[in-house]
Amino acid sequence: MTMLDLGQETERLLKWLGEFGKDSDGGVSRFLYTPEWVEAQRALELLMKDEGFTVQYDDVGNLYGRLEGTTYKDETILTGSHVDTVKNGGLYDGQYGIIAGIVAMKYLKEKYGQPLRNIEVVSMAEEEGSRFPYVFWGVKNIFGIAKREDVEDITDAKDIPFVEAMRNAGFNFRKEDSKIRNDIKAFIEAHVEQGGVLEIEKKSVGVVANIVGQRRFNIEVKGEANHAGTTPMGYRKDAVYVSSLIVNSIMDMAKKYSDPLVATVGKIEVKPNIVNVVPGNALFTLDVRHTHKDILVKFTKEVTDKMKEIASETGVEIKVDMWMDADPVPMDPVLVQAVKEQCDKNGLNYKMMHSGAGHDSQIMAQFVPTAMLFVPSHKGISHSPLEYTEPRDLGEGVKALIGAIYELAYK
Amino acid sequence: MTMLDLGQETERLLKWLGEFGKDSDGGVSRFLYTPEWVEAQRALELLMKDEGFTVQYDDVGNLYGRLEGTTYKDETILTGSHVDTVKNGGLYDGQYGIIAGIVAMKYLKEKYGQPLRNIEVVSMAEEEGSRFPYVFWGVKNIFGIAKREDVEDITDAKDIPFVEAMRNAGFNFRKEDSKIRNDIKAFIEAHVEQGGVLEIEKKSVGVVANIVGQRRFNIEVKGEANHAGTTPMGYRKDAVYVSSLIVNSIMDMAKKYSDPLVATVGKIEVKPNIVNVVPGNALFTLDVRHTHKDILVKFTKEVTDKMKEIASETGVEIKVDMWMDADPVPMDPVLVQAVKEQCDKNGLNYKMMHSGAGHDSQIMAQFVPTAMLFVPSHKGISHSPLEYTEPRDLGEGVKALIGAIYELAYK
Repeated sequence: MTMLDLGQETERLLKWLGEFGKDSDGGVSRFLYTPEWVEAQRALELLMKDEGFTVQYDDVGNLYGRLEGTTYKDETILTGSHVDTVKNGGLYDGQYGIIAGIVAMKYLKEKYGQPLRNIEVVSMAEEEGSRFPYVFWGVKNIFGIAKREDVEDITDAKDIPFVEAMRNAGFNFRKEDSKIRNDIKAFIEAHVEQGGVLEIEKKSVGVVANIVGQRRFNIEVKGEANHAGTTPMGYRKDAVYVSSLIVNSIMDMAKKYSDPLVATVGKIEVKPNIVNVVPGNALFTLDVRHTHKDILVKFTKEVTDKMKEIASETGVEIKVDMWMDADPVPMDPVLVQAVKEQCDKNGLNYKMMHSGAGHDSQIMAQFVPTAMLFVPSHKGISHSPLEYTEPRDLGEGVKALIGAIYELAYK
Repeated sequence: MTMLDLGQETERLLKWLGEFGKDSDGGVSRFLYTPEWVEAQRALELLMKDEGFTVQYDDVGNLYGRLEGTTYKDETILTGSHVDTVKNGGLYDGQYGIIAGIVAMKYLKEKYGQPLRNIEVVSMAEEEGSRFPYVFWGVKNIFGIAKREDVEDITDAKDIPFVEAMRNAGFNFRKEDSKIRNDIKAFIEAHVEQGGVLEIEKKSVGVVANIVGQRRFNIEVKGEANHAGTTPMGYRKDAVYVSSLIVNSIMDMAKKYSDPLVATVGKIEVKPNIVNVVPGNALFTLDVRHTHKDILVKFTKEVTDKMKEIASETGVEIKVDMWMDADPVPMDPVLVQAVKEQCDKNGLNYKMMHSGAGHDSQIMAQFVPTAMLFVPSHKGISHSPLEYTEPRDLGEGVKALIGAIYELAYK
């Protein structure tokens, strides 16, 4: 396998892995602990064995393939991503991190032989939260921070209990006395961008410096439902009108703060939602993200004050409920610098950037030095059968990964 | 019965009539040609007979109660309204016009005896369109403008055909050779306001000079669905943001035009409607009403231009589809003046106004001189079990009706 083949080999394996859980319309639905999920992990296990990796599962079903190091036997360089998908997802989200890791390790093994430090690729059990109301089950179990009680009473849409699904798949809770791994010296996750920045800026690779923090809100505007014909404009308490004033203010403020701040009103429900009734009630969501906590806090405080001010001026009630508050997660600066240098050294067309989406890396980064690599998402599309990354870019991402792992594991 | 008893007598009869089709929670659901509807018409028939009115149904089930005139036997003064209700409606919408007519005729008969011209009260079969997708079935059949083919293929929510329901209730299509009545010299409909203006302005009676015209639109904004975290603000085509700009513009323009123009965005549907996805698509309705056609046309033209301008500036597609265009209907100026004079003469606390809602009178006015009287709706509530009008105001409305009918039928 030459450098030139990396992209095609990666695409071939993505398509192969995408057969497990393939939907009739071409998408992939592979939920945690389903038969398709089990088949995918078993197939990856065989692939890794074929490549000469040492393979093992942990208690909950994270799958590891390992090249043993010759010298620093208690030091491991880890790569990989999650094997589960959203409902009717694509071939790239999650899958790419696993396949890129396998292809990189295969290349390194063929070209340089046994590394000084262990290299491992992990196919993590779950990240998306698509089947059960729980996310990051895979990575959280690597570090023993997934709590048994958080999943003991949850079920999927068919009322199958989490615990039953897990046991039927052949796995179980992490043993209480399992030691937390302290051999992982670095984790590098390759992933698709899930945004359009790389494609628009014609870059093949993104080196991620940090993952944004997120705050999410439910906002309820309570006005008064009235007859659309018989209620003069001056007598109205129109929840849609007030909401539109609020959305405008939020967007104006977000643009003034400028990148990387993003604010999204993605979901709206209006009551009674009838053409000839002045709407009495509007419920909408607000999702705000930024790489720096202080700015995230400042912006959301200002927006909340502004929303209350508009409600007061227009004589309606408002309820602002923050139900998610996740801090930004910086990647490890030393590791990011090392990855960046490899991109330079290999002449890759890359860009320093942040991740606007959440990833396994944000949990990983709390425990081990972590970095992320992005490849472009065509039109920014993700969580869709239409996900696409050109083979050339898939290959460029693998090259960056190869460079970084070589630097970390062979020197 | 003295003038002082009119309100209480009216309220008593409204409650009595409201028993037919009463819902378990106190509202009224009385749809065209249902058993409850048949029972209500039969009960009204008996009530009218008890009062000494000559009673008859027409082919489709409109019920008329008549006091014969002594002198002008081919001239009739008509009052009344519709007997059907919306789903879970109240005691006043429709019912009030029938009961007010009966109480007024009873009073006139007792006090003044036989009139010079015939006086009739009509309990019209249908106005709300609550059971079948057809409105004004009752009044349109009085003038032979309801088309057989418009109802021949329609069914209710339980798939019962219109024609079957009609025949089971004992009625049938209007005979082709029936003569159009040319004896009706005036129609006066008493109705609840269905808005809050009379209550806010502390008036007991509204004299309606015209019924608004309406234009209704579906507006679709097509942007681009994108990941809420990975799509910078500058790269977005956010359908909710653009819609909020449009709603703001519409409301600003509507306020500048001032009363009686009203504009309502009552219904919104967002796609994909997910908290963490920049919305790609927003569909919303616009309902615009005004008493003058030229202003209605001018305003909706300006709003449509403005919407397209905003869409163009923000780089999204827009589709503006007008699916209803009903002209304003003026009431008969001579008749309105006569009603107004009776209000003055009887010392009623009244207000000249327009109707922002549609009524049987808007069809009636195309064929005979027509006027409307409103009484207040508490908090403007209508189409709800919470509809309420104080007995005193119910009585003031009946007084206005008595004055007008006396003037028209006894002189």
